[in-house]
Amino acid sequence: MANTSAGRPRATMSTSRLETFSDGVIAVAITLLVLDLHVPNPAAPGSLARHLVEQWPNFAAYLVSFLTIGVIWTNHHALLGRLASADYSVLALNVVLLMTIVALPFTTSLMSEYLTARAGQHLAAVIYGGSFLVFGLVLLFMQRHLLTNRAHLLFERPTPELRRAILRRTAIGVVPYLLASLGGLFSPYLTLAILAAVALFYSLPAPDRRAL
Amino acid sequence: MANTSAGRPRATMSTSRLETFSDGVIAVAITLLVLDLHVPNPAAPGSLARHLVEQWPNFAAYLVSFLTIGVIWTNHHALLGRLASADYSVLALNVVLLMTIVALPFTTSLMSEYLTARAGQHLAAVIYGGSFLVFGLVLLFMQRHLLTNRAHLLFERPTPELRRAILRRTAIGVVPYLLASLGGLFSPYLTLAILAAVALFYSLPAPDRRAL
Amino acid sequence: MANTSAGRPRATMSTSRLETFSDGVIAVAITLLVLDLHVPNPAAPGSLARHLVEQWPNFAAYLVSFLTIGVIWTNHHALLGRLASADYSVLALNVVLLMTIVALPFTTSLMSEYLTARAGQHLAAVIYGGSFLVFGLVLLFMQRHLLTNRAHLLFERPTPELRRAILRRTAIGVVPYLLASLGGLFSPYLTLAILAAVALFYSLPAPDRRAL
Amino acid sequence: MANTSAGRPRATMSTSRLETFSDGVIAVAITLLVLDLHVPNPAAPGSLARHLVEQWPNFAAYLVSFLTIGVIWTNHHALLGRLASADYSVLALNVVLLMTIVALPFTTSLMSEYLTARAGQHLAAVIYGGSFLVFGLVLLFMQRHLLTNRAHLLFERPTPELRRAILRRTAIGVVPYLLASLGGLFSPYLTLAILAAVALFYSLPAPDRRAL
Repeated sequence: MANTSAGRPRATMSTSRLETFSDGVIAVAITLLVLDLHVPNPAAPGSLARHLVEQWPNFAAYLVSFLTIGVIWTNHHALLGRLASADYSVLALNVVLLMTIVALPFTTSLMSEYLTARAGQHLAAVIYGGSFLVFGLVLLFMQRHLLTNRAHLLFERPTPELRRAILRRTAIGVVPYLLASLGGLFSPYLTLAILAAVALFYSLPAPDRRAL
Repeated sequence: MANTSAGRPRATMSTSRLETFSDGVIAVAITLLVLDLHVPNPAAPGSLARHLVEQWPNFAAYLVSFLTIGVIWTNHHALLGRLASADYSVLALNVVLLMTIVALPFTTSLMSEYLTARAGQHLAAVIYGGSFLVFGLVLLFMQRHLLTNRAHLLFERPTPELRRAILRRTAIGVVPYLLASLGGLFSPYLTLAILAAVALFYSLPAPDRRAL
Repeated sequence: MANTSAGRPRATMSTSRLETFSDGVIAVAITLLVLDLHVPNPAAPGSLARHLVEQWPNFAAYLVSFLTIGVIWTNHHALLGRLASADYSVLALNVVLLMTIVALPFTTSLMSEYLTARAGQHLAAVIYGGSFLVFGLVLLFMQRHLLTNRAHLLFERPTPELRRAILRRTAIGVVPYLLASLGGLFSPYLTLAILAAVALFYSLPAPDRRAL
Repeated sequence: MANTSAGRPRATMSTSRLETFSDGVIAVAITLLVLDLHVPNPAAPGSLARHLVEQWPNFAAYLVSFLTIGVIWTNHHALLGRLASADYSVLALNVVLLMTIVALPFTTSLMSEYLTARAGQHLAAVIYGGSFLVFGLVLLFMQRHLLTNRAHLLFERPTPELRRAILRRTAIGVVPYLLASLGGLFSPYLTLAILAAVALFYSLPAPDRRAL
């Protein structure tokens, strides 16, 4: 059972652990979003209903970030699904990509605390939108690296047309995040609205919808 | 090893990552329940025993929510177990389902903080029961979607009788959550008692018990 | 690809998700132990060294609980490793077992906060030891259930001798937890010492050591 | 399906759960780093920009620790990738290794809180660097144990040359952590700079880079 290199395909195993680790990290990051929903102090003046209503930015940001990270997972899933095996460059780029995902509960919390504040709300919104933008840019870079420099690691070597189509779809997916980030200069509500629209668009089942 | 699409069945791989990610999210959500058990301050007046006894709503809510999320996992497990492969609509619906599960540690904490409060306890109980109700409704919708619109993705195309039986079981499972939510209008203890009864019922080993 | 029940062995898949979910829960529970190591406030009077030394119960409890949960995982791993497939009773018992594991970060935190307190230290130690005892008893019950009532679910139907040997090993493993819990009546240091000895005993590599 | 020991290779399954559990623990540990990024209080005096800039040690430590734990995961991945099956000694050593990894969010937080403090900053830096050093030493010990005493558990029994090469690479990888720890005696910034350089070095894609 040991002493043979034929026993278990090592490259596929690598991809499988890459998926397990990535799924774990994204699963923890998406679940940490709940820590931003605060239980009001029963001893505080004011009704529970009012306290919860005042916390609406936290619920809105929870919804938007949860759905968006869900879409992120779907795309990450499609990206790794093309890989038959992974080399060191793929592992390293994936860690950087995960680093941008793990920061999202922080920027989400920043947005929900500052949405209705009198100062800092524009900066918070730019950072919130910008954190998705950074993720999207790293994803685009990693897509390009896999499709262009590491095509021999994929299950199917993509045709130039397919490669261009995938990269175009990925690049187009980055645009709303850029708009959401810039929108924060005008109003944090604009940032939230753009991100909510994108999340809903990708979450609504459509007959021909597909991941990147 | 690369360059062939026959090497690894891609649809099955998708289902496997769908399960890994869902298991990760549910595992983190169920474990976060422990953060609601508070260690009393040793410097505070009063004995440790009294402080722990006063925290009984937290322990009760921990028990009820843990067992219920355990049952939820079992049913989610049965639902995905029928799937041979997943399309985009399944991934998107699953993210929405997970969003309702991840909110449960928050509503659990809300219930345990307000159970013995003089105000807000009814609203907290309605929200607590309601959070399980929302989960149940999304699960019912997803079951119906899989069995009706995505039957070609299942290992075995269900007979109309089986489909009706599964949907009936799922719908019946939602009823106690509706009652638990409405029960909160009368007393938060009623909500907790109904949910505890449901959790115990499903957790007790029975010869003919099965998941959805 | 769909429409066939032969495509993927469903029972094995069930066991695989049972393992993934359990691993996820135990992994989160063991990692949450780090939240009990507190960073001293740089603005507080006194040197960092003194603050860290005063926190020694937290470090000791971290070590003991981490190694013990590691041993718990190893035994859980051996228990599920015998299973070829799982029925509803196994899933339900496993959820109860996980519930006792997830409570351990709370009892660990209780122990480390009260170890050097002037009151409540005995109760905290009894609860700390008792939480491992409760886990051990549920494990023993689950072992017995699998080996006696669900032997048809195992890869190999155990001989009566093997069954008795496994149950005896499991039962013997519960004894130190009983002693650790009772020891808390005399001194919380006794509880910690017994648990530390057990954890070290099982963690030290020995030629003939094996899991349950 | 049951009652046969040939159904599923048990040793490989063990390795697979060892990987799942380790991936889970490392995934949670790396994600907990985000809890060290604090959302400033909107009601506090001073602009959000200033509050975020003052928190730069937290962002720097997040970056350094995230990339380093990413490298740690890659090496752990390579180490377990050689294993065809695991015995008790491997499980026990792996738990000790995970214990050193789970402590890293604590030492990271210690470093970021004390980097700009007037006292304790040297000790915090020595502990921060030292926590990576301890991890590296346990990894080296485990590598040696696998390659020397447990070579029969590996897919391919390594040649003496390969064994020496792997152990040399692992030992060399420990040196920067020793320097980072000792560097804290002079300046905590030196510790951070050394760790940042190492993390960047290993994260940058290089044609011939490989894991241990």
